[in-house]
Amino acid sequence: MQRTLARRLQAAVIGDSDPPGHVVRMAEEAGRLLARLGITVVCGGLGGVMEGVSRGAREAGGLVIGIVPSSRLEDANPWCSVVIPTGMGHGRNVLTALAGDFVVALGGGAGTLSEICFAWIHGRPIFVLTGAGGWADRLGGKALDARSSSTVRACASLEELERALREAFGALLQG
Amino acid sequence: MQRTLARRLQAAVIGDSDPPGHVVRMAEEAGRLLARLGITVVCGGLGGVMEGVSRGAREAGGLVIGIVPSSRLEDANPWCSVVIPTGMGHGRNVLTALAGDFVVALGGGAGTLSEICFAWIHGRPIFVLTGAGGWADRLGGKALDARSSSTVRACASLEELERALREAFGALLQG
Amino acid sequence: MQRTLARRLQAAVIGDSDPPGHVVRMAEEAGRLLARLGITVVCGGLGGVMEGVSRGAREAGGLVIGIVPSSRLEDANPWCSVVIPTGMGHGRNVLTALAGDFVVALGGGAGTLSEICFAWIHGRPIFVLTGAGGWADRLGGKALDARSSSTVRACASLEELERALREAFGALLQG
Amino acid sequence: MQRTLARRLQAAVIGDSDPPGHVVRMAEEAGRLLARLGITVVCGGLGGVMEGVSRGAREAGGLVIGIVPSSRLEDANPWCSVVIPTGMGHGRNVLTALAGDFVVALGGGAGTLSEICFAWIHGRPIFVLTGAGGWADRLGGKALDARSSSTVRACASLEELERALREAFGALLQG
Repeated sequence: MQRTLARRLQAAVIGDSDPPGHVVRMAEEAGRLLARLGITVVCGGLGGVMEGVSRGAREAGGLVIGIVPSSRLEDANPWCSVVIPTGMGHGRNVLTALAGDFVVALGGGAGTLSEICFAWIHGRPIFVLTGAGGWADRLGGKALDARSSSTVRACASLEELERALREAFGALLQG
Repeated sequence: MQRTLARRLQAAVIGDSDPPGHVVRMAEEAGRLLARLGITVVCGGLGGVMEGVSRGAREAGGLVIGIVPSSRLEDANPWCSVVIPTGMGHGRNVLTALAGDFVVALGGGAGTLSEICFAWIHGRPIFVLTGAGGWADRLGGKALDARSSSTVRACASLEELERALREAFGALLQG
Repeated sequence: MQRTLARRLQAAVIGDSDPPGHVVRMAEEAGRLLARLGITVVCGGLGGVMEGVSRGAREAGGLVIGIVPSSRLEDANPWCSVVIPTGMGHGRNVLTALAGDFVVALGGGAGTLSEICFAWIHGRPIFVLTGAGGWADRLGGKALDARSSSTVRACASLEELERALREAFGALLQG
Repeated sequence: MQRTLARRLQAAVIGDSDPPGHVVRMAEEAGRLLARLGITVVCGGLGGVMEGVSRGAREAGGLVIGIVPSSRLEDANPWCSVVIPTGMGHGRNVLTALAGDFVVALGGGAGTLSEICFAWIHGRPIFVLTGAGGWADRLGGKALDARSSSTVRACASLEELERALREAFGALLQG
């Protein structure tokens, strides 16, 4: 019975707050895919990639958690099902990275890169959806350092991301 | 349409990890009540009051978020729908307090008291369910300092808590 | 030789940012005493008790560390020898409490009380300088919960505080 | 008079906890240089580059602050003048980065890279001492993202680092 109660897989989805429009659309598609697979989406709760993935997941019936930098519940984008205010500013990036069984990165500047670092250090598998530029594209398939705690897998399309997730998490997924 | 997407009210429920059995049962009842009112329960994700409120809410069909001190998703009690690992130890108490539109406290030692302090500082309304001893019982109806940022309302029963929540949040509740 | 390099004792001094003038003067005297005993003062780096203890310690030739809520080095009071910005808001209170081999509390509202809680949880001995009101006065000689991790010793004067510190830390003190 | 009390410049020095011996020696030399220039050294307080820079600075009469991941004052290397325990694990990296008026990086894996990211985001100037490998070498002279909040200046030797610091901070330095 515990089994039916256990939490669903959690994906931390990370990326810029102000990316080009096509990257927001990629994030939206990724959110839709994750929701369809029964995966809870966790993100930084603000705009850009965060809002894209939130909207996509929520519209597909998924659950979305936004971990925001401020101490105000009101500061999240309107697609978050639950808001976790931190009052820690950019320091909340370590929390976003930790909140996934795995991480999905798109594009990304220094903030996203710090989250990739924390995911790497804490052994969270990292999947990058390439084609959005930024650090995600540059790090696909690479190691961040000599630790072999994690992996960075480059996925050139949503189909490839879905295949990679099925390979990694198989029976834990829906659909 | 935004309206139907907006997140539900969030209650941060706080209390000891190792209280007497009747306090765990109070927490369980509180969880059940909150779930019935359509309120998301956030807690520290571990045992005692945290596990009690998680089980109660989850069995009543509610959503439960556990913000745990370690960096491991596995460390939460099995009733959490979503786990937010922090790696911050007791420092995560500030996050638990911030994660509620309001706070419900039962019993409690120094950890719970630190959460009541942060809830007070950040203006989250505090409801104490009396009868569990600890700091919650002692602070009911009192002010923590000269700030008038928040209130501590003592509720002697679940019925009184429900009335107080209906008064405070009326139309935002279900049922 | 290591011995001569080892760090000095550290006191975390906590209290309100906006207390009555006589409490600021008490903090200043406490800072002077701690510096004279060769103890590094750590505090929240802002005004009131924090500024008082910083000025007192610095004028007596001591070292003062200010752990401030913002991410800006400029936000500390001008008496800090070193500033540790946190960007964590009130969440930095856990850091202030941890930064002392022991804690000295004067007066205090909810913020100070949260620091006393964290000092208690982490086993830092707590000395309250009574006569400043607030939570420090109320908690002198009391236990915060059933843990016996720490103690709260009430000192009615600077002389009594000095005696208590000599008793507790003897050979580690100067002068 | 305030002027003579004001704090000294602070350098956050970052790098691996387990680098090759020559990198530790570079860190030691860097510590010596910073102390000679009257700059307070802040670091992560543990081994490797952190211990090297601590020893160098301390032996040259400087002040060294160690911001450690655990909640224990005892966990710092023995060259720290002051220890700031955080209990935040790798999350303390944001604090290390914030604690410098500028950052000096040597070598470095994912942890150091996360600190470079936070320094960049918060506009702290970054100086990399090249020749130690790792992320510091790779990022010298580059931008982390489109923000122009900070700069990463590559210095091929201690002499070049000293020149760069004199250029940047001139009259604020000693010696």
